[in-house]
Amino acid sequence: MSLELEQPNISEQFEQLISKEDKLEIREFLDDQNISDVAELINEYPEYEAQIIANMAVHRAVSVFKILDIAQQKDIIKELPSAKTAELLNELPADDRTDFLEELPKAAIRDLIKLLDPEERKITLSLLGYPEDSVGRLMTPDYVYVYLHNTVSEVYETIRKHAKNSETIDVIYVIDQSGLLIDDIRIRDIILASPEKRVDEIIDGRFVSLNVNDDQEHASQVFKMNNRVALPVVDDNNILLGIVTIDDMLWVANEEFSEDMQKMGGTEALNEPYLDIPLLKLFRKRIGWLVVLFLGEMLTATAMGYFEHDIAKAVVLALFVPLIISSGGNSGSQASTLIIQAMAVGEIGIADWWRVLRREILSGLMLGFVLGFIGFIRVMVWHSIAPAMYGDHWLLIAATVGFALIGVVIWGTLSGSMLPILLKKCGADPAVSSAPFVATLVDVTGLVIYFSVAVLFLKGILL
Amino acid sequence: MSLELEQPNISEQFEQLISKEDKLEIREFLDDQNISDVAELINEYPEYEAQIIANMAVHRAVSVFKILDIAQQKDIIKELPSAKTAELLNELPADDRTDFLEELPKAAIRDLIKLLDPEERKITLSLLGYPEDSVGRLMTPDYVYVYLHNTVSEVYETIRKHAKNSETIDVIYVIDQSGLLIDDIRIRDIILASPEKRVDEIIDGRFVSLNVNDDQEHASQVFKMNNRVALPVVDDNNILLGIVTIDDMLWVANEEFSEDMQKMGGTEALNEPYLDIPLLKLFRKRIGWLVVLFLGEMLTATAMGYFEHDIAKAVVLALFVPLIISSGGNSGSQASTLIIQAMAVGEIGIADWWRVLRREILSGLMLGFVLGFIGFIRVMVWHSIAPAMYGDHWLLIAATVGFALIGVVIWGTLSGSMLPILLKKCGADPAVSSAPFVATLVDVTGLVIYFSVAVLFLKGILL
Repeated sequence: MSLELEQPNISEQFEQLISKEDKLEIREFLDDQNISDVAELINEYPEYEAQIIANMAVHRAVSVFKILDIAQQKDIIKELPSAKTAELLNELPADDRTDFLEELPKAAIRDLIKLLDPEERKITLSLLGYPEDSVGRLMTPDYVYVYLHNTVSEVYETIRKHAKNSETIDVIYVIDQSGLLIDDIRIRDIILASPEKRVDEIIDGRFVSLNVNDDQEHASQVFKMNNRVALPVVDDNNILLGIVTIDDMLWVANEEFSEDMQKMGGTEALNEPYLDIPLLKLFRKRIGWLVVLFLGEMLTATAMGYFEHDIAKAVVLALFVPLIISSGGNSGSQASTLIIQAMAVGEIGIADWWRVLRREILSGLMLGFVLGFIGFIRVMVWHSIAPAMYGDHWLLIAATVGFALIGVVIWGTLSGSMLPILLKKCGADPAVSSAPFVATLVDVTGLVIYFSVAVLFLKGILL
Repeated sequence: MSLELEQPNISEQFEQLISKEDKLEIREFLDDQNISDVAELINEYPEYEAQIIANMAVHRAVSVFKILDIAQQKDIIKELPSAKTAELLNELPADDRTDFLEELPKAAIRDLIKLLDPEERKITLSLLGYPEDSVGRLMTPDYVYVYLHNTVSEVYETIRKHAKNSETIDVIYVIDQSGLLIDDIRIRDIILASPEKRVDEIIDGRFVSLNVNDDQEHASQVFKMNNRVALPVVDDNNILLGIVTIDDMLWVANEEFSEDMQKMGGTEALNEPYLDIPLLKLFRKRIGWLVVLFLGEMLTATAMGYFEHDIAKAVVLALFVPLIISSGGNSGSQASTLIIQAMAVGEIGIADWWRVLRREILSGLMLGFVLGFIGFIRVMVWHSIAPAMYGDHWLLIAATVGFALIGVVIWGTLSGSMLPILLKKCGADPAVSSAPFVATLVDVTGLVIYFSVAVLFLKGILL
């Protein structure tokens, strides 16, 4: 940002002012800064966070407040005098208010809702009634609407009257007397139209709307595919309830991303910043999957137990166990991540399973061949350095390791790529087939593949 | 979308029209549909993709074209007659055109650039000159600018003149005669101002700009933190070069997300849809990391070799090797994913390493204790079912497994959480410390921990 170059000393200025304790001057200074710079000041001086918010014009204070972390927001609300809290909450756009309230304990929500004006209270309660992750929670009822019979100059009048309280005036909505959504008009088309034209002459009848119960992820897709900065939200009867603006989508994308990543790493979605989540809660989110994976992994001990006598006869086989099962795990994690990611951005659907399978069989063959070859060479080289290690049958051991690797890598690639598709088919979230999950699955079967190959090559010789 | 309810049969209508081969009717039908619905038609009937694009009004055709996959875009350009291609490319907004061209081979770019008008050609060549992933590549030079001395009614005039060719008129930019950016004005403030006011009376002097060389990821953060639908892009001297609109940010977020996921799964970023990337290229992107991991994992065979005599004496120890190392790997993947994700969304910085370390030591202890306890019980239960398996020293074996698990899980959690921070500190991309990478690291050290604990408990008894 160029601003950082022009005003390198916002922090210094702030420190000077705060030491002078001149409220008026502080307020003037804060109102001169960009929203994002004030947010950075709060990050830098958390001890003054409530003071900063309290000393700003309220319409700017809410803009800062809504981009802060939930932990900072909570701290500020705790510290502010309740008159200031009421002012802030009433001024906060309805969607951001819902977003903040839903993170609080029930009792705190009740206390804060009491501070709201009757009208805002009604709106907030209704927004909190929509399911989490639904478009309803992102919606704001502050938009500009006009009727078909309005003229362009009447539209201007309406805009001038409502612009202050609207989240956006870049798009205006056309409804009928019953509230049914008829069309949207971009401000550009209003400006280009002559003042005496009527709304029904400038609409194009093409609009895209969201249902209030739609998933937020769906909304983000619709925004991507339609060049709009705001979309209308309707109920099942097509009655306009509110609008969603595109800037909320950046936050939705971020949240989806975090959730998917966490699931893929074998954790439940945290829904709170890592450093803010209480330690015990963090533990609970993590232990579940670890125990499931651990129980699954126990089957490796069972599988190994099955081959215990073979291992006793040829301990050398045990040496390669970690190498072989982890190669299967790694190629499996790789494949599953590729497929989950491609499904998350909509590149692959369930119907594509056959194309994916064909690609992964070929990929698995090539990858397996390379690793198998390196494994073979590894045994050969070690044998030439320390012949005692693998004994007379080093070539058979090398072949066992090489072929087992090919088999395990193909198997890892196949199960890693098919599992997410299978999960999606069953209606589950593919991200659950995380790298650790696939690795565990492949570990157990990998052992069976390895020892079966060993028996094939070494039966009657070492085994 | 409510539209799907109202017009359930877009596909059917399209099939009827296409069979009649009436170009005029097809064109009318296509121009009646939403952009996203036309894009879906193209997905459904890829055989008609070029025909659909060719039969739309060109300003709508570009809106459809720019949301298609790169593979579809390439196909369409291949099939279209070159007059149509020229029309389409010239109409395409400069940023979307750059985005499309940069995916093509050099020779194809040259051929297509020849089709452009001189003015558009100059713009395109200059945009292609900015580094990949820079703001310059997202920029469009089509915006509305005014001067300080203009009156509001003059601003209206300028808007009316340029609205057709501008990416957005939601924000207007104020520059001086040398092109220096002075401020931005939202359309809302223009509409609210009286016509005779001058621009210098309505500006607030607060604006946020992007540098043309800024990273796209940075741009996405700035959009999130500042309530704007478009941001001005300037060079190092603060000269206005173009603007970036917020809808591009949804695509940037998607791309960043895909790249991070792929890296974390142990692949290089594909930069192409999974199903479109040629098989050999896919192989090359995957084999690199797999070989590195494989070479690292070879150390497990070395470590196991070091304990070969212990294993020969107590084969039972080998049975738990996969269980123990994979528990370390799983807890490590979990920790690294949590930290990478938190760093990606800016919740954690390098400076927080000490807070992370403290949390992870405690988490690791708790997680390790739970898994260690289950492992201990597992040996005890199996012993009571089949006493021959672990012999007289089952309790010592159970203790070995239990304590080794605690040690390995703590170690996994610590290295998983610290590695991403360390990588970032060294200037590398933390996402590289992917789950497979951490798992491999922990496998090798996990073996050493396990056998060291075994020697501690069983020396002189089984070993």
